[in-house]
Amino acid sequence: MAGKFISMRNIKFMLHEVFEVETLTRHPYFAQHNRKTFNLVLDAAMKLSTKLLHPIFKEMDRKPPELADGTVNVHPSVAGIMKEFGQGGWIAATFPEEFDGEQLPTLVANACFMMFSSANYSASVYPGLTVGAARLIASFGSHELKDAYLDKMLTGKWQGTMALTEPQAGSSLTDITTTAYPSEDGYYTIRGQKIFISAGDHDGAENIVHLMLARIDGAPAGVKGISLFVVPKNRSDGTGGFVSNDISVTQIFHKMGYRGAPITELSIGEHDNCRGYLVGEPHRGLVYMFQMMNEERVGVGLGAASIASAAYYAALEYCRERPQGRRITSKDPATPQMPIINHADVKRMLLFQRAVVEGSISLLMQCCQYEDKRHVVDQEENEKYDLLLDLLTPVAKTYPSEMGILSTSSSIQCFGGYGYCEDFPVEQHFRDMRIHPIHEGTTGIQGMDLLGRKVVMKNGRAFKLFMKEVQGTIGRAREFSALEKISGQLDQTMTRLQDVTLHLGGVAMEKGPEVFLSDATLYLEMFGIITIAWQWLLQSIAVQEALGGDVSTGELNFYRGKMFAARYFFAYELPKISGLANRLTDSDPITMEMKTEYFAD
Amino acid sequence: MAGKFISMRNIKFMLHEVFEVETLTRHPYFAQHNRKTFNLVLDAAMKLSTKLLHPIFKEMDRKPPELADGTVNVHPSVAGIMKEFGQGGWIAATFPEEFDGEQLPTLVANACFMMFSSANYSASVYPGLTVGAARLIASFGSHELKDAYLDKMLTGKWQGTMALTEPQAGSSLTDITTTAYPSEDGYYTIRGQKIFISAGDHDGAENIVHLMLARIDGAPAGVKGISLFVVPKNRSDGTGGFVSNDISVTQIFHKMGYRGAPITELSIGEHDNCRGYLVGEPHRGLVYMFQMMNEERVGVGLGAASIASAAYYAALEYCRERPQGRRITSKDPATPQMPIINHADVKRMLLFQRAVVEGSISLLMQCCQYEDKRHVVDQEENEKYDLLLDLLTPVAKTYPSEMGILSTSSSIQCFGGYGYCEDFPVEQHFRDMRIHPIHEGTTGIQGMDLLGRKVVMKNGRAFKLFMKEVQGTIGRAREFSALEKISGQLDQTMTRLQDVTLHLGGVAMEKGPEVFLSDATLYLEMFGIITIAWQWLLQSIAVQEALGGDVSTGELNFYRGKMFAARYFFAYELPKISGLANRLTDSDPITMEMKTEYFAD
Repeated sequence: MAGKFISMRNIKFMLHEVFEVETLTRHPYFAQHNRKTFNLVLDAAMKLSTKLLHPIFKEMDRKPPELADGTVNVHPSVAGIMKEFGQGGWIAATFPEEFDGEQLPTLVANACFMMFSSANYSASVYPGLTVGAARLIASFGSHELKDAYLDKMLTGKWQGTMALTEPQAGSSLTDITTTAYPSEDGYYTIRGQKIFISAGDHDGAENIVHLMLARIDGAPAGVKGISLFVVPKNRSDGTGGFVSNDISVTQIFHKMGYRGAPITELSIGEHDNCRGYLVGEPHRGLVYMFQMMNEERVGVGLGAASIASAAYYAALEYCRERPQGRRITSKDPATPQMPIINHADVKRMLLFQRAVVEGSISLLMQCCQYEDKRHVVDQEENEKYDLLLDLLTPVAKTYPSEMGILSTSSSIQCFGGYGYCEDFPVEQHFRDMRIHPIHEGTTGIQGMDLLGRKVVMKNGRAFKLFMKEVQGTIGRAREFSALEKISGQLDQTMTRLQDVTLHLGGVAMEKGPEVFLSDATLYLEMFGIITIAWQWLLQSIAVQEALGGDVSTGELNFYRGKMFAARYFFAYELPKISGLANRLTDSDPITMEMKTEYFAD
Repeated sequence: MAGKFISMRNIKFMLHEVFEVETLTRHPYFAQHNRKTFNLVLDAAMKLSTKLLHPIFKEMDRKPPELADGTVNVHPSVAGIMKEFGQGGWIAATFPEEFDGEQLPTLVANACFMMFSSANYSASVYPGLTVGAARLIASFGSHELKDAYLDKMLTGKWQGTMALTEPQAGSSLTDITTTAYPSEDGYYTIRGQKIFISAGDHDGAENIVHLMLARIDGAPAGVKGISLFVVPKNRSDGTGGFVSNDISVTQIFHKMGYRGAPITELSIGEHDNCRGYLVGEPHRGLVYMFQMMNEERVGVGLGAASIASAAYYAALEYCRERPQGRRITSKDPATPQMPIINHADVKRMLLFQRAVVEGSISLLMQCCQYEDKRHVVDQEENEKYDLLLDLLTPVAKTYPSEMGILSTSSSIQCFGGYGYCEDFPVEQHFRDMRIHPIHEGTTGIQGMDLLGRKVVMKNGRAFKLFMKEVQGTIGRAREFSALEKISGQLDQTMTRLQDVTLHLGGVAMEKGPEVFLSDATLYLEMFGIITIAWQWLLQSIAVQEALGGDVSTGELNFYRGKMFAARYFFAYELPKISGLANRLTDSDPITMEMKTEYFAD
């Protein structure tokens, strides 16, 4: 597997030119880093992606995990990957020095994970999940838990998971029934069943550490009775050894894509011998879990953007090389055919993919920047970035995931019939992509989260901060005459977004929350397009700033390409909001009035 | 495999209530049929679908064809399917009586093929291709060819194929190099290579009959030098036996979906011993082939709509049964969860699927009606229906194919994580769907066909006829007050379509064909949405007419559901054209100005 899967030039553009990651190093928390060390880290990540992950991209799909004799056997390289990610400091990259972490900005660490995911999404999930699970212990666990688990997880010896879903409780976490019975020795005896647990068991790690939601026996019903536990596959026997903790894998799910990682069904405590260790206080489990959930939601967006990136570069390479057809104005069959990249419609498809990929990456980096800023600002500003990150998380999860389906589909289209065949990677990218609008909260759930919670919380404070952020960008863009048209377009759009949001606020008051939220998914779609337009304007400013200096021909091509992708987005994608806005304000409550029996035939 | 894959009620609604198929029987060509015989045929097709095709839907995907020792081994049921389709008269259904055909209206025959394709798309392709190939021989072949091939093909003993594509000639058929060398005995010796030939070889038929494009040695370059040949896998030895005709299968393509049918690469005449038989006149091959190509393009739309139908009914069943969550206004965790079909967002997804499926089916039936009308009208009217069919073919091919990706994706979304797993059929539908925007001419090719050829041909006559057809429907709809809103909406839309088309005409004159056609795909997308809106208005008229009479409760649910799907389409889908129209008239030639080197990084 040769071939480009992500653009290092673009990543450096994002980090250095758009989000100016180096400015973070002025602050004590990041002071040990500088531009040079950041670039060294990026190079190392690219090397790891190219040498270790990408070569087995196809193979991990063709030889998916197997459950045999209660053990999940994964691709033999997984053990090496975990080890490498542990030893190389990739799992601990963003952890503070107190945990032997690199204290690296999330901006840089996630840029690296973008490389990993675009090289081989399934492979990147093993260390990726471990990061989030370990951070949960670091944030809320006792000293004992930290001592017992963090080092093993951060060094890649132990796998971390996120164990929420149960057969009857997917989107509806309130219905979790896995139960934790307190013991006199401080631990809890856990009994229940979990499904769809990614990397829930495998032979590539010495142990599996589930960050598991369960209900302490007798706890109140609903989400307020859910607690968080560390539940390992093997638990310490107290004498330095380990014993099985009574968790068995009852099945692994055979999936359309994302086949390199096992998704498991777990039966917990069949023999009443599974011990779980409470994280933080009882009944506050969902609040804690949301730290990991939000991190993983951004992670899902990041995975989706990365897959779309890999598909885009595969398509781009093919379009450059594949001769087919001639200019419409010179159809002489005696002349040679030209590479298809010269056809306007192919350029349109490639610009679409680029606009989705680089727009999504920009939004994800924006989220990382907000995350990083929390380490370098005072409390008041901290709240601001918290709110912005909260608001943008459902968008950062959903836009890359939903548009990634269309983007990878477009990559296939560039290949024609070959794209549908297993000889080329794009069909796998298309399959790998499809999980993203589902896991870590479906698109429908994200829509309700955005409109029903994030937009309205604290009297719309996050929404107002967002408007201000975008207006700030528009203000900066106005200094460049080349950006006059698109910044004007975004300005008008923000008014439209405000109008639609106000209209929906009125609906909420007049008709109640059900009608208010009935088209939340459409609202999220519109919000997503606008957010990406904002990110394209932000990138365009960086381009204009660069063009003000000395630029080599190669660099000029890069920057001009960026401007075309931005123009593409404003001409082809942003106009899509008018149809959505029309619907969101037309007040015909179709889905509310549609009765289930009308689906009869 | 139990479960509904298509709605017989909806098919009868289309045939009897919308397109009034029985009126055809007033004319001599269809006089031997009546409503009752039509319904018997439909019932028989449903039985065949349920008993023979649907049970092996998954199995044909899991055990794809294999090439071993030069032979393509397909699922063992294929032989029985071909036999059943031959003996049952399904292949010959629309053929005139002179060929022992049933002389059935295309409306009815394709309604049956829709059942077959929704039950098992891959299985339906074998007989489906044979129909088109046989019709090509029937239309343009000599008596000798008809005698030698038609009976064997129509009885399902021999497989028909469509052999156009070559490694260097996919979208660009002008570059075909397969060569036919005339012999003194009337046959041609064929030499060349074909790729992506569906059912190009398999052990489920006694012989394979390729309808193959090739260039007679010394023929003019370009499409005007392409001829059509019948090239069998085994040819008659002149004494009642058969000998191999020197065609070998050099590979079969391993595909993401549509895995039940083999797509082959053929090497023809490696030993200079492959004979082909000219169909019609030399150098007119592409003109003839367009008969089959157009038929198959409608067939692709039909296959796509059928797959989307199967996925929709699977999702509908799941949504009715799966409990998850509660009303937003009553979140008490002590109350039982409700089936997810009650959530507004789920109803929206189901309505989307229904609107795409039934809208697409309606357009496809509309095309069939135009086809059928040619048998019952005079020459002038005949030309009218020819033109309308020509105009709508790229739309009927593309709308179901492109929207089918989103519709099956939405079916997966209804299932949540389960939809991504192989236990449920929707992931296969999603994979099976993806070929449709590619085969029989990509979406890009269809866009250029619509805008660059069909809309402008004969001074826009087809376009004007289309406008008149739609206006006729709007006029009829105005008799029903319940349709006032949507017919007004469609009326405005038609003005917008006309404006955009005129604008593009101006672009063609001012800036030439390249700029004119640069966004032809977007024009096709807009045209498709409008066409489906028209079809929903047509269906709505039939609903209103039915509601004027006595209707049982069950029927009332069906008709009310139809009206909601129509309302859904006009509220959620039709508004999408405003973004497209904006782009199509904004005159920023982005893809023309984008240089290939700007894709550098």
